[in-house]
Amino acid sequence: MLSTFASDIEISRAQTPKPVDQLAEEIGLLPEELEAYGRSKAKVRLSLLDRLHKQPDGKYVLVAGITPTPLGEGKSTVTIGLVQALSAHLKLNSFACLRQPSQGPTFGVKGGAAGGGYAQVIPMEEFNLHLTGDIHAITAANNLVAAAIDARMLHEATQSDKALFNRLVPSVNGVRRFSPIQISRLCRLGINKIDPASLTPQEVSTFVRLDLDPSKITWQRVVDTNDRFLRKITVGQASTEKGQIRETGFDIAVASEIMAILALADSLVDMKNRLARMVVGTSRSGQPVTAEDLGVSGALAVLMKDAIKPTLMQTLEGTPVFVHAGPFANIAHGNSSVLADKLALKLVGCDGFVVTEAGFGADIGMEKFFNIKCRASGLRPNVVVLVATVRALKMHGGGPNVILFYYGFSIVGKGGCRSNLRKQIQIAQLFGVPVVVALNVFKTDTQAEIDLVCEIAKECGASNAVPCHHWSQGGRGSLELAQAVNEAASRPSHFKFLYNIEMPIVEKIRTIAQQVYGADDIELSPEAKAKIDYYNQQGYGSLPICMAKTHLSLSHMPDKKGVPTGFVLPIRDVRASIGAGFIFPLVGTMSTMPGLPTRPCFYDIDLDPVTEEITGLF
Amino acid sequence: MLSTFASDIEISRAQTPKPVDQLAEEIGLLPEELEAYGRSKAKVRLSLLDRLHKQPDGKYVLVAGITPTPLGEGKSTVTIGLVQALSAHLKLNSFACLRQPSQGPTFGVKGGAAGGGYAQVIPMEEFNLHLTGDIHAITAANNLVAAAIDARMLHEATQSDKALFNRLVPSVNGVRRFSPIQISRLCRLGINKIDPASLTPQEVSTFVRLDLDPSKITWQRVVDTNDRFLRKITVGQASTEKGQIRETGFDIAVASEIMAILALADSLVDMKNRLARMVVGTSRSGQPVTAEDLGVSGALAVLMKDAIKPTLMQTLEGTPVFVHAGPFANIAHGNSSVLADKLALKLVGCDGFVVTEAGFGADIGMEKFFNIKCRASGLRPNVVVLVATVRALKMHGGGPNVILFYYGFSIVGKGGCRSNLRKQIQIAQLFGVPVVVALNVFKTDTQAEIDLVCEIAKECGASNAVPCHHWSQGGRGSLELAQAVNEAASRPSHFKFLYNIEMPIVEKIRTIAQQVYGADDIELSPEAKAKIDYYNQQGYGSLPICMAKTHLSLSHMPDKKGVPTGFVLPIRDVRASIGAGFIFPLVGTMSTMPGLPTRPCFYDIDLDPVTEEITGLF
Repeated sequence: MLSTFASDIEISRAQTPKPVDQLAEEIGLLPEELEAYGRSKAKVRLSLLDRLHKQPDGKYVLVAGITPTPLGEGKSTVTIGLVQALSAHLKLNSFACLRQPSQGPTFGVKGGAAGGGYAQVIPMEEFNLHLTGDIHAITAANNLVAAAIDARMLHEATQSDKALFNRLVPSVNGVRRFSPIQISRLCRLGINKIDPASLTPQEVSTFVRLDLDPSKITWQRVVDTNDRFLRKITVGQASTEKGQIRETGFDIAVASEIMAILALADSLVDMKNRLARMVVGTSRSGQPVTAEDLGVSGALAVLMKDAIKPTLMQTLEGTPVFVHAGPFANIAHGNSSVLADKLALKLVGCDGFVVTEAGFGADIGMEKFFNIKCRASGLRPNVVVLVATVRALKMHGGGPNVILFYYGFSIVGKGGCRSNLRKQIQIAQLFGVPVVVALNVFKTDTQAEIDLVCEIAKECGASNAVPCHHWSQGGRGSLELAQAVNEAASRPSHFKFLYNIEMPIVEKIRTIAQQVYGADDIELSPEAKAKIDYYNQQGYGSLPICMAKTHLSLSHMPDKKGVPTGFVLPIRDVRASIGAGFIFPLVGTMSTMPGLPTRPCFYDIDLDPVTEEITGLF
Repeated sequence: MLSTFASDIEISRAQTPKPVDQLAEEIGLLPEELEAYGRSKAKVRLSLLDRLHKQPDGKYVLVAGITPTPLGEGKSTVTIGLVQALSAHLKLNSFACLRQPSQGPTFGVKGGAAGGGYAQVIPMEEFNLHLTGDIHAITAANNLVAAAIDARMLHEATQSDKALFNRLVPSVNGVRRFSPIQISRLCRLGINKIDPASLTPQEVSTFVRLDLDPSKITWQRVVDTNDRFLRKITVGQASTEKGQIRETGFDIAVASEIMAILALADSLVDMKNRLARMVVGTSRSGQPVTAEDLGVSGALAVLMKDAIKPTLMQTLEGTPVFVHAGPFANIAHGNSSVLADKLALKLVGCDGFVVTEAGFGADIGMEKFFNIKCRASGLRPNVVVLVATVRALKMHGGGPNVILFYYGFSIVGKGGCRSNLRKQIQIAQLFGVPVVVALNVFKTDTQAEIDLVCEIAKECGASNAVPCHHWSQGGRGSLELAQAVNEAASRPSHFKFLYNIEMPIVEKIRTIAQQVYGADDIELSPEAKAKIDYYNQQGYGSLPICMAKTHLSLSHMPDKKGVPTGFVLPIRDVRASIGAGFIFPLVGTMSTMPGLPTRPCFYDIDLDPVTEEITGLF
């Protein structure tokens, strides 16, 4: 252990990770199942899932949180501390499944996201930077779709049916043939012909014209940078685009539907099918237009073929970690991937533990974990660990913001615990899974505060509530949590979904708003109503719901701490991610692109060009 | 060898690459100098250069081309065939240095760029897709700068000097400190103070306000996708950006100044310094504003710390290849990296050969290789290999375009050879380096055509001219070329630059236009004139020139084949890449963002989700 004042990166650098091939051997991987990226991270091939097909799954633990402060309450450190304790101290096979950080927050406000103190994934700079390129692959795939959409609209606007057909189905050495992706489109159009010459002029026109309505394109471009000036833009203003301008925008890359597909797919076949099904907009006659209609879905699968493999890393104490899929449970579903969880559950075996993380508070990350991810995976968690901090509870108890948290014991007791913590425990209980509260202890917390929070948590229905000292002590500091989780996992879990998938879209949204957020009701904008009618008409009515809502409050109002009541949840707009498989309501003014503050954290990030050491990533 | 009809990817897949650690051992790398990315590619650490510091360099061969058809004439295949022949047949250590392909053309018009037939880099799909993430890192770094620019302008527009100062130099635990990057800015401003409290109000204002003139921002965003609708856009239209809209655009990622820096830097220190010096725009008072002024240069170095290491791969015959930096010699400098060349020259030793590639015709890629890259590296080439095809020569001889090349022998003889080939040989001779013409033979070429081209090439001043059959025969098919290159490399080379770096900017541009392109003169737009005056005033007058000109003609007019004469070269605009170290004139209507055609090649690209095999990358 270094001094108490050591920074995360100093602690990370003081530990030499074991070679990733040694780690892989320890956890039972075959050499041919591993693709090393440098010495300390590797992609794991999906063939592993076939090999371990008959192996029983381990115990499945979800780490969620109370409503956080803007700085986060330490779900990643709790996850890492917990697997370190389970492994090193209880001698149980265990695996953490984390999400790859977005470079937006890393260079924006939040800094790195590899955990912290003695509960980190190492090397933390590799975790926080490009990793094995998954988010970059998603960005490339997402933006290829966007370029294909606009280019296709331009070409359709400037060419006759015949010219389009001659270019789309060119004569090569005197022979015209449809490509397989074109035959799929013909099938969907009900044109069961494979000889291009046999199409009638009407069929040619139907085939060559996607006829996208520029005002109904839902596909956005993405970058993995907090670039607020791209929230709303006008494209196509160069003279070469012949006046085909339109308004659109960029989202942060991790909010791409392709990220959600990466997270929810359970095989390469499933990923490819989901990519093909993605709806990018609507034709002028009201038909959905898909990535496959654009001819781009095969290329997307090619761009994503490595990204679908989870990345193996390790904690500071050498416990295995899968890093896969992305954060932002507010504007995405924000859970680690189904495939990482499934692979890890096989690898740990029936007595082992897989600890996976859901973003932000239980109201968003956990709700989506249960209603979206568990539906996709078929997996059922044994225990929910709910992370709380005295700092956040003080904020909910009346502290105006996180910077000024010098509030006393009484505020914690009366306000924060009896409100937000209780409510978040109740949310977990809606799903029938035992809850263990993990109080992430900061050095400024008093023993009285710690005892009170744990006591109230148990009163509020938690199976157990324990303080955690992983930040300063590593796995040893989470031993009590590991014991509590191990005990809770042996109890029966009565998992149930919050809503029936066949309920109308509006009812599903209302159920989440009322039962999870505590809203009186929901209020749909005319735009949201029209979209829902359209999605129902298109047969998308029985998809689960992925709410885009602030993570800073149970409500849609970031300033309303504790347990807000007496509010109506405004649904500004609704999108549909058909490939990912969910309906995506936008709540209030929620933005899908963060911004940079006056002094982004990049001011402190630097590289010593001689030692190659990085400073300022924390 | 497979059948004559085997596709590039079938040939690639039929050969199992040797494990990259075995390849590394064969060429003399130590295990700790290698960072494997999967089994068949690895990054090579720059510490190698220190270790081999005293080793003499090998022979240095540049592969350039005649003015190409839109499909390319095979410089990559010639490069690969040549190193295969030098290695396997002449038993000389050799190394190819290639550029990483852009995903724009890969999914746009051109397809992959790993060579072809029996002269390929394998596995070709890894070469053509994300490789080791360099272009993605460049994109991330470039766009972080862009986000920082717009966010900074917004924050300056909406805050007082005092508020800006309080945020830029916050009080942490009661102490205010400048970060090192802020101290650099203070030094440049002539404010030699390190105590934030000691700044006068005027100094605070000077320090906190970059005062960027929105109409004089030269930094563009980038994507590695052919997205023509991003050529000209308006950003900042969301209400959160408070009306700070402006027109800007995206370039293709490989045209980013950061790519040029990656290619031209000779160490991590040099790269970091160049990143800090990049000028992103001008203040309202006419001062250049740099990446370091934005506080982002340390973060850029962190984002680029792995990208600066060249990627080691191999040819189909197991010859080592470095893949580093990017293509597009028309709108970028388009050469492989200085570091890859330097590392390779040390690794092959004094009798060995390094064959490096310059993009497109000798008029652009080679001219930039000599005048920009050789100036930055201090390296001097021994031989230029000029690649020609009968197909392209027929086009220059009068064929209207590449699709219709059924022209006879006489047109080749009279037109193409005696014009474009002669001119491109003469351009190479301007630099005093021996030229070997490599005729890349297609199966449709007749023996009479082949003989005539070689004969004329020698008449026009080539040291030698030989037919190459590497596409169908691999290294064996390039044996004659290897012998010719080996022989030419033993002759004296009298290398000289085309222009003196101290000549005025306009004179340097004119020299290239007249002596290389054959223009009568140049014509500067008022905008270009004003920019040049400004750059002179800022002390950037003695930088080399990187012309952005079409690759499809010696002139600025893509349709003018052969050797156009009697034209005046229009300089539409001039940019300055101060970090990369060149002045960047835009010739004619040259666009820095390609577009997608009606049927992009992604229509044929697909992935078999069971076998994981890719089709349609060629």
